[in-house]
Amino acid sequence: MIAEKMKPLLNNNSAIRAMFEEGKKLAAIYGAENVYDFSLGNPNVPAPDEVNQAIRDVLDEEPSTFVHGYMSNSGYEDVREAIAQSLNHRFGTKFSQNNILMTVGAASGLNVILKTILNPKDEVLTFAPYFLEYRSYVTNYDGILKAVSPDTETFQPNLKEFEQMIGENTKAVIINTPNNPTGVVYSHETLTAMAEILRKKEKELGHPIVLISDEPYRELAYDGVEVPYITKYYDDTVICYSYSKSLSLPGERIGYLVIPDELTESSQVFTAATIANRVNGCVNAPSLMQRVVKRCLDVKVNVEAYDRNRNLLYGGLKALGFTCIKPQGAFYLFVKSPEPDEKKFCEACKKQNILVVPGSSFECPGYVRISYCVSYEQIERALPAFERVAKEYGLKGEN
Amino acid sequence: MIAEKMKPLLNNNSAIRAMFEEGKKLAAIYGAENVYDFSLGNPNVPAPDEVNQAIRDVLDEEPSTFVHGYMSNSGYEDVREAIAQSLNHRFGTKFSQNNILMTVGAASGLNVILKTILNPKDEVLTFAPYFLEYRSYVTNYDGILKAVSPDTETFQPNLKEFEQMIGENTKAVIINTPNNPTGVVYSHETLTAMAEILRKKEKELGHPIVLISDEPYRELAYDGVEVPYITKYYDDTVICYSYSKSLSLPGERIGYLVIPDELTESSQVFTAATIANRVNGCVNAPSLMQRVVKRCLDVKVNVEAYDRNRNLLYGGLKALGFTCIKPQGAFYLFVKSPEPDEKKFCEACKKQNILVVPGSSFECPGYVRISYCVSYEQIERALPAFERVAKEYGLKGEN
Repeated sequence: MIAEKMKPLLNNNSAIRAMFEEGKKLAAIYGAENVYDFSLGNPNVPAPDEVNQAIRDVLDEEPSTFVHGYMSNSGYEDVREAIAQSLNHRFGTKFSQNNILMTVGAASGLNVILKTILNPKDEVLTFAPYFLEYRSYVTNYDGILKAVSPDTETFQPNLKEFEQMIGENTKAVIINTPNNPTGVVYSHETLTAMAEILRKKEKELGHPIVLISDEPYRELAYDGVEVPYITKYYDDTVICYSYSKSLSLPGERIGYLVIPDELTESSQVFTAATIANRVNGCVNAPSLMQRVVKRCLDVKVNVEAYDRNRNLLYGGLKALGFTCIKPQGAFYLFVKSPEPDEKKFCEACKKQNILVVPGSSFECPGYVRISYCVSYEQIERALPAFERVAKEYGLKGEN
Repeated sequence: MIAEKMKPLLNNNSAIRAMFEEGKKLAAIYGAENVYDFSLGNPNVPAPDEVNQAIRDVLDEEPSTFVHGYMSNSGYEDVREAIAQSLNHRFGTKFSQNNILMTVGAASGLNVILKTILNPKDEVLTFAPYFLEYRSYVTNYDGILKAVSPDTETFQPNLKEFEQMIGENTKAVIINTPNNPTGVVYSHETLTAMAEILRKKEKELGHPIVLISDEPYRELAYDGVEVPYITKYYDDTVICYSYSKSLSLPGERIGYLVIPDELTESSQVFTAATIANRVNGCVNAPSLMQRVVKRCLDVKVNVEAYDRNRNLLYGGLKALGFTCIKPQGAFYLFVKSPEPDEKKFCEACKKQNILVVPGSSFECPGYVRISYCVSYEQIERALPAFERVAKEYGLKGEN
């Protein structure tokens, strides 16, 4: 019954499920409060109060058939215009509603743009470590995902290898900054150099290479770090944005694509992407949530809560002797495994009831991802357990 | 830039856009109230008050991180269980949450199940006239859609031709009852005979044939007609349901798949469909709306309003001499064109400021679709215009 293309995903799914079941088993034995689950990227900070207030206001102030009805497959014009103006205000861009396409979250946005541009066997490059779903998304349209190997010193993209990997069949590049799983924000210098390489290669190869920027973590940045706006660096850029993290609405599936005028065949791409959004079955982004985000453009989730978590966990793990770069964004630490096979390290953690994700799941073995979108108290309770793991490996703390 | 597969859709889209633009032009010249747009399937009856009340109640009573957060990719367990029990109560079925997969509307549900089961070149049968998006959905997964020609006497499926068209490569059949564009409800007799053919062919061919029932119009049935529940006729059935019409929530994109235990490899299919829902970028059905439909399982849109429209328009057109079977469900009339080329008839209608959709758009030339999900007043105002068209064609009314 199952399509051939789905079978590898089905097998892989069993592994994830096994891990999930094991977590539940641990919780049943030791009590949920004594199991430290750092494996999920599920925001624990609630949506700002303004969001639920905006929902109530929309219901009170806007007609029901309008709020729950069909609109253009690209979204309500006024919502798209408001988003465009907000971006222009923040980043000095020049977007209008004709550049904004509302989508069922960033995951759907990625699928929409990939469906719009990919032919079978087209290659899409990305940078390890990366969110493994990118592979599924590219495979959906019979494209081939190739990952540039990581620069484990800085976790900035390895641009030397990147340049070498761009070839005749390279149609697109996916970047993700602030990054899952490293928390790294791509710097102005990185993006300048990356854009230069892409422009050079476009000229050499004689066809456009689309830089797709997956930005669900844009608003989660710390220490005042700037998250550069990618369209300002490179013309053939498409942005995939989501409100999942910025407004803590991951279940609502609301986001947008930015398709700038500077993109090659911009208006054709916009129309085709709108059709892709329709025929892939989404039809349009959820209507009420479109109306809501228009009213919440200046609202932000409590980033300080994540920042507190980041400082506690990063400080705690460094003090215990773990090796990790300090993340500037998102809500993950990407920690070096004290032994080469990080899956064994994950097992050692699990013996202390700590659940973390092996770097192999991001095509970057030797590291583990620790999500700190959990309660502050969980981190406090978990640190003694991490200490036992550190002792087991003979790590020497900074203190 | 545009993928080869998207190009035909892009061309086709221009035609639809041209029609839409022409409608706007007419409205600009004659005033919107003097243009009779019967071309869209957009519910005009508002969502029942209970829906907006349920939204407020969910926000008041359920925790924000739960309401707006991630859940299983197949949906909240309690929502799925409540839907299963409601179906069991209404139709005497035996579903549980393990048979219900929440989707981003029925269009997405169709894509999810087709992605789950189709291999390239697999054939999917459907019955003309049919919703043309089915072709896009099947093509998304490199399947081939084949349409059984219509029985224009009854617009029940042409089962003789259907049986002949089932072959080695037939993987699935899509039905839609109550039907868009005919308004016909497939009868108990039709479904019994169809199921018998499918069982025979499954045995002959030695592989399952999945009957996919697209049911957005299930609750819109008139004159007390029964809309049979398909899983009771045939084991290898998957239902695609949507709340777009039953609760007038087309913009919200909320629906579900029913994957019954009786389906071949049911639990594998359910798991694979859940993965398909995730990797196609939907991830999950919109969370707040899931919580809402759980509270609105016994709520129904004002079907009587559509029924009044149906009686006025059907009676009016018959009285003018038009030929049309009386629809038992949905909100469309499928009217015979007074001349063989129904596109010319559409042009004649347009001269009277009436917009209708040619049957060719449903692979059934010689007919036009007239949507009556419009205001009662629009129909009243349009009847004199229809009368002028009837006179032009020398039609003789019943009176």
